[in-house]
Amino acid sequence: MDINLPDVVAEVTIAFERYEAALTSNDVAVLDTLFWNSPHTIRYGATENLYGYEAIAAFRSARSAQGLDRTLSNTVITTYGRDFATANTEFQRLGKSGRQSQTWMRSLEGWRVVSAHVSFLPG
Amino acid sequence: MDINLPDVVAEVTIAFERYEAALTSNDVAVLDTLFWNSPHTIRYGATENLYGYEAIAAFRSARSAQGLDRTLSNTVITTYGRDFATANTEFQRLGKSGRQSQTWMRSLEGWRVVSAHVSFLPG
Repeated sequence: MDINLPDVVAEVTIAFERYEAALTSNDVAVLDTLFWNSPHTIRYGATENLYGYEAIAAFRSARSAQGLDRTLSNTVITTYGRDFATANTEFQRLGKSGRQSQTWMRSLEGWRVVSAHVSFLPG
Repeated sequence: MDINLPDVVAEVTIAFERYEAALTSNDVAVLDTLFWNSPHTIRYGATENLYGYEAIAAFRSARSAQGLDRTLSNTVITTYGRDFATANTEFQRLGKSGRQSQTWMRSLEGWRVVSAHVSFLPG
C-alpha cells in the first residue's frame, strides 16, 4: 500500500479544502456533493448521529447558517494507495475545541466522504 | 469499488470484535497490535488527541482499567474493495451515550486501525 503518494495527497487536499469552505459558508449543495450518495454513509455530528446520505442532507438543509466560522489546526491528510484517504483536524469554534475526522473514497464522480465524526472536547 | 464483499466484511467484523473485547478487558497488547504501527496513525479519544502509534500506545499503557465496560448499538461495518473499511458504532458507558469511528486498512500483518475518533454526546 503506497502511503501519501504526492499527487493523491494533492487531490484529497483540494477536496478537503473545498469541503471546509463550503462548511463555513453553509454551501449546502457543495456539502451534499462531497458526501457519498449512499445509505452506507455515516456522519456523527457534535450533537447527532446520522445514518445514510438522505439523513445527512436533511440535517444540512435544516441547519442554521450562523456561527459556522472556525479555525483549523493540526490538520493531517493521509492517503492509502490511490483511492482512500483520511483527513483529521482540530478546530476552534465559538470558543470551544473540536475535532473532525473524515474518511474519503475516490468515486467515479470524484473524492467523497464515506464516514465523518465531529465532536468537541469536554470543558 | 466493490462495497461490502461478504468475505471482507467477515474479516473486518472479526478484527472489530477482537478490538472490542480487548478494549473492555484492557488487553493493552492486543489494542496496540490492532492499531497501525505508523507515525501517521491518529486517535481522537474522549478527552485527548493522540498523533502517532507511540503516543497512542503510551496512552493505553497509562490508562485506568476501571469502568471500561460498555454496550454497543447500531454498529455499522462497511468495506470498500478488499483493503479498506470503516466501523462505526454507538455505545453506552457509565450512563453516557458515545460514538466510536474507526478506519481500518489491510496491512501485511492483518487489519489495522489507521484512524479512530471516540466522543460522548453532550448532556
